[in-house]
Amino acid sequence: MSLSPGAGSAAADPVIYTYLGPEGTFTEAALLQVPGAEASERIPATSVNSALEMVRSGRAHAAVVPIENSVEGGVSATLDAISSGEPLRILREILVPITFVLAVRPGLGLADIGTVSTHSHAWAQCRDWAEANIPQAAYLPASSTAAAAVALQDPESGFDAAICSPLVAQRLGLTVLVSGIGDVADAVTRFVLLSLPTSLPAPTGADKTTLVVPLPEDHPGALMEILDQFSARGVNLSRIESRPTGLFLGDYFFSIDADGHIRDARMADALRGLHRISPNLRFLGSYPRADHKEPEVPRHNSDEAFRRADFWLEGLLRG
Amino acid sequence: MSLSPGAGSAAADPVIYTYLGPEGTFTEAALLQVPGAEASERIPATSVNSALEMVRSGRAHAAVVPIENSVEGGVSATLDAISSGEPLRILREILVPITFVLAVRPGLGLADIGTVSTHSHAWAQCRDWAEANIPQAAYLPASSTAAAAVALQDPESGFDAAICSPLVAQRLGLTVLVSGIGDVADAVTRFVLLSLPTSLPAPTGADKTTLVVPLPEDHPGALMEILDQFSARGVNLSRIESRPTGLFLGDYFFSIDADGHIRDARMADALRGLHRISPNLRFLGSYPRADHKEPEVPRHNSDEAFRRADFWLEGLLRG
Amino acid sequence: MSLSPGAGSAAADPVIYTYLGPEGTFTEAALLQVPGAEASERIPATSVNSALEMVRSGRAHAAVVPIENSVEGGVSATLDAISSGEPLRILREILVPITFVLAVRPGLGLADIGTVSTHSHAWAQCRDWAEANIPQAAYLPASSTAAAAVALQDPESGFDAAICSPLVAQRLGLTVLVSGIGDVADAVTRFVLLSLPTSLPAPTGADKTTLVVPLPEDHPGALMEILDQFSARGVNLSRIESRPTGLFLGDYFFSIDADGHIRDARMADALRGLHRISPNLRFLGSYPRADHKEPEVPRHNSDEAFRRADFWLEGLLRG
Amino acid sequence: MSLSPGAGSAAADPVIYTYLGPEGTFTEAALLQVPGAEASERIPATSVNSALEMVRSGRAHAAVVPIENSVEGGVSATLDAISSGEPLRILREILVPITFVLAVRPGLGLADIGTVSTHSHAWAQCRDWAEANIPQAAYLPASSTAAAAVALQDPESGFDAAICSPLVAQRLGLTVLVSGIGDVADAVTRFVLLSLPTSLPAPTGADKTTLVVPLPEDHPGALMEILDQFSARGVNLSRIESRPTGLFLGDYFFSIDADGHIRDARMADALRGLHRISPNLRFLGSYPRADHKEPEVPRHNSDEAFRRADFWLEGLLRG
Repeated sequence: MSLSPGAGSAAADPVIYTYLGPEGTFTEAALLQVPGAEASERIPATSVNSALEMVRSGRAHAAVVPIENSVEGGVSATLDAISSGEPLRILREILVPITFVLAVRPGLGLADIGTVSTHSHAWAQCRDWAEANIPQAAYLPASSTAAAAVALQDPESGFDAAICSPLVAQRLGLTVLVSGIGDVADAVTRFVLLSLPTSLPAPTGADKTTLVVPLPEDHPGALMEILDQFSARGVNLSRIESRPTGLFLGDYFFSIDADGHIRDARMADALRGLHRISPNLRFLGSYPRADHKEPEVPRHNSDEAFRRADFWLEGLLRG
Repeated sequence: MSLSPGAGSAAADPVIYTYLGPEGTFTEAALLQVPGAEASERIPATSVNSALEMVRSGRAHAAVVPIENSVEGGVSATLDAISSGEPLRILREILVPITFVLAVRPGLGLADIGTVSTHSHAWAQCRDWAEANIPQAAYLPASSTAAAAVALQDPESGFDAAICSPLVAQRLGLTVLVSGIGDVADAVTRFVLLSLPTSLPAPTGADKTTLVVPLPEDHPGALMEILDQFSARGVNLSRIESRPTGLFLGDYFFSIDADGHIRDARMADALRGLHRISPNLRFLGSYPRADHKEPEVPRHNSDEAFRRADFWLEGLLRG
Repeated sequence: MSLSPGAGSAAADPVIYTYLGPEGTFTEAALLQVPGAEASERIPATSVNSALEMVRSGRAHAAVVPIENSVEGGVSATLDAISSGEPLRILREILVPITFVLAVRPGLGLADIGTVSTHSHAWAQCRDWAEANIPQAAYLPASSTAAAAVALQDPESGFDAAICSPLVAQRLGLTVLVSGIGDVADAVTRFVLLSLPTSLPAPTGADKTTLVVPLPEDHPGALMEILDQFSARGVNLSRIESRPTGLFLGDYFFSIDADGHIRDARMADALRGLHRISPNLRFLGSYPRADHKEPEVPRHNSDEAFRRADFWLEGLLRG
Repeated sequence: MSLSPGAGSAAADPVIYTYLGPEGTFTEAALLQVPGAEASERIPATSVNSALEMVRSGRAHAAVVPIENSVEGGVSATLDAISSGEPLRILREILVPITFVLAVRPGLGLADIGTVSTHSHAWAQCRDWAEANIPQAAYLPASSTAAAAVALQDPESGFDAAICSPLVAQRLGLTVLVSGIGDVADAVTRFVLLSLPTSLPAPTGADKTTLVVPLPEDHPGALMEILDQFSARGVNLSRIESRPTGLFLGDYFFSIDADGHIRDARMADALRGLHRISPNLRFLGSYPRADHKEPEVPRHNSDEAFRRADFWLEGLLRG
């Protein structure tokens, strides 16, 4: 069985995926971007934790969960779940454009909508449109955009419209009255595909490395010491979040995405430095960036510069 | 009307509060810690954005929303909502211990529970207990712990138990079978009380300052330059999160909590430095720490050291 | 009396200068660059310390001494003498191109030179030329290039040639056989004009500030903390030297030249920061750069950026 | 032949030393501290450059020259001479207590001294004593303290007293009227023993490493980037001096002494980092500290911490 990016399944041994459900969420849309996933078994999970639990226990080979900016929550749960427990490895990241449609009971027009349901975060992102176009509508929260869509099919659900993803509307055959109603054009959410630790994907030149770094001591310079390990090697960060460990107040870890692959000399050297100051850090994977954007690496942080420095030093130590 | 901490309402002019609802959530429990709030009007909002919109539009005087580690989501929404739009000011932070109870339909014992409902994050935090004690129970998601509690009263809701806060169970008169079922003892969630800009609370010696700092340029040292403004003045950070601006990928702002008050010389000096490198930063308030923990300030970063340095420099400039 | 650069003397009250002698050294050449000095009294001193002592005691108004890269020594003495004792102020820096001539007893050609005398540092700078052109000549050290030149006039001195400055050769009417014999083309030495503290010269846009900064504590980050005060405000250093205090081993001060004027906001702010971490630092003056080279100041470190940051902060503190 | 510290000479192959002369200077006193040097050939050189030239050309095996705080100059010459040209290696550092004696013509008392001669730096260090005890005496500069002592024996030299080292006074059999006349008690000068590159001395736990690091680019952060390589690995500096390269203004190198041995993992790692940002840096040796003072190395910068970090990283790269 192969879980390498670009080879979602193999004939002999089908891959089982799980994701933050229910069916039709943006998370499932993310999973469907994984090559081979469309033809594979996809089990919706009721929470990020249960999705990851399925991977850890072997009931699924890989899970897709949100890691940044999700419309339907789960980001904190993902960050916390991957920071402790059985180690997991990120195989790839997936960007999903967030676009919303207004699905209605057949026959209704905008002026007929008295109540509309969706996830509260989705509602937040469509508020401006709603106030301008269906100001009379009352809002009923749902546990996900997909749940609202499903419930719209139920005559008992008592609401007239649902705001959901194009995917679920199409799949359920709902009547879409308006498309692209989100207030932020070009909004995207980032998801990751996680499995048990496996072989590292090869560097592509445009990679990302995700780490969990416990704060070794809580003093004004401690975070700087961590970040200096990156900046001193010219490694850019694309995400950082402090998270309370949950053990006691003032005890933090940092969830960090850094530009580059562990097989890049500058990243390997930064990881060495991090290990010294925070020996319990956790490496969550090096994987291709979804946007294929290559970092600018100054010459003095290139693999060649590291190789030359090693060569020079070895000469001195032999001498 | 006064919104200063310690004076939630005044006889002549009652304060109207809003919060991330529905009634009985941990957010309402947070609001009830604000002096005077219990006797004031408290309007539940369906989302963080709508709560803040009520404050911005003047329909409420202040709002309580989660800012860290919330059981019921909303943190990202809070961070994003306060980072743009009409400026708001944090008046105080509130810590709420997160404890869960198992409320059941009258007459049921643990072995009788076939289905249990709660918010997915709460479920995640009670999973270990549930697997050990009600392994037979199926999980039904709810949009909040309070919604699950309310629905438990409804004979049609079709489930046998709800996991919710002690507050809502007590208020609804539910039958609590087991208390303290959360897997993490001593879990807390942090909330903030927000209003329109108002006069600064006086420094207490144990304060926090919340900032939104756009990343001026995306290069390896940019975040270091921001953080250096704090560490160079001995200011500790207790929270940092990068958030995509939503405008385009690779465009970030940082949501930061720093130890100290804007009237502390070291914090004022750090803010001056931040303004130079990120002129669009946003000051969200200086307010007392909920845990009253005073920072250790090295002598060379004391108000006195700043005063002496100013005095010395002015002497030279006059000379 | 005026000692401001550009006004070396005034009719009513003549300025008395001193310098590291004897007459005809490169130090006197430096002094002669000061407007008005040629017409003023110029007293050679036998050492840097005695020159500075004359200023401190009021016997001279100003002194010229070497501060970097001197052919005839004295730099360490200058650095140490201005770092303690009665405070002095640098009024200007002076660059002197170091060119050497070979002066001979009348009638001698290159092949006739059996012995040559000069200061040992000057000899070091003319060695290649000497080995190529007067390989037969033995070297006799002198206490200065000028002393060698003077002694050449003395029939008893017993040597055939002196290496000295063009100034002293011309003044003494010596026979110059070859000019420009130094091995390093374009060598320059830097001197400073020192007086008792006086009013600050106005900023020119291309200024330098000289400081003495005691190392507050001897730990790996201490020097970084000092230098960070400059780099965090975009202030470049053009010279740094650690000097033992002489009090006990491991006790240092730093002699620093930084680009900019104390009336530049970024420099003033850096000085404030330095004062906090090293309250006994000594400001030795802001004065025009001899090379008139203006620093590149990034917009966020401009006076305007500082002014705006102050304005913004004051608005918050009032609010 | 062995030049290892502690074994100055071997029977079969005598070591030839040179030093900054003339005989009887503090530099010769430094050389005499080297085990075996007393019984070896010791050739005085007229300048630092000529001493080093003797080593580079093979005419001497090793040279002793001043590197910090010298009474008789030569420090700048040393720093510049070892920064370019044929590479040399520092084998050991030597501290010499600087104490001065007043030697007089036989029969003279303090009141009889009309003129006194010494090197100008030595004069500077005895001025307070001289003003209090021989205020009537005129000062005549000499090219070294030893030269003054030698000249005192010459009836024609025309002065009554010399200030010199106890060593030269004793060796010449001069009449010492007063000992310990220096103004600074406990003054010391630092010298180094230099040879052609040879095998590294073993680490002792209290070592020093000397480096020449060209400034790669002249911008406000460039020096910080260099120093960060040390402080990020907990390596303390005991000396830093910027020196103009002599090629053109604004082009610098740094002469640096850092605490530790190139075989210490933290120093090796710092050197690797330095090589990347300044590939033309020059390693001048790791050698025992004269004061045997061991640095405090935080656990996360210990050899063990580096070894563990390497081990961890290799595990990830294999995985």
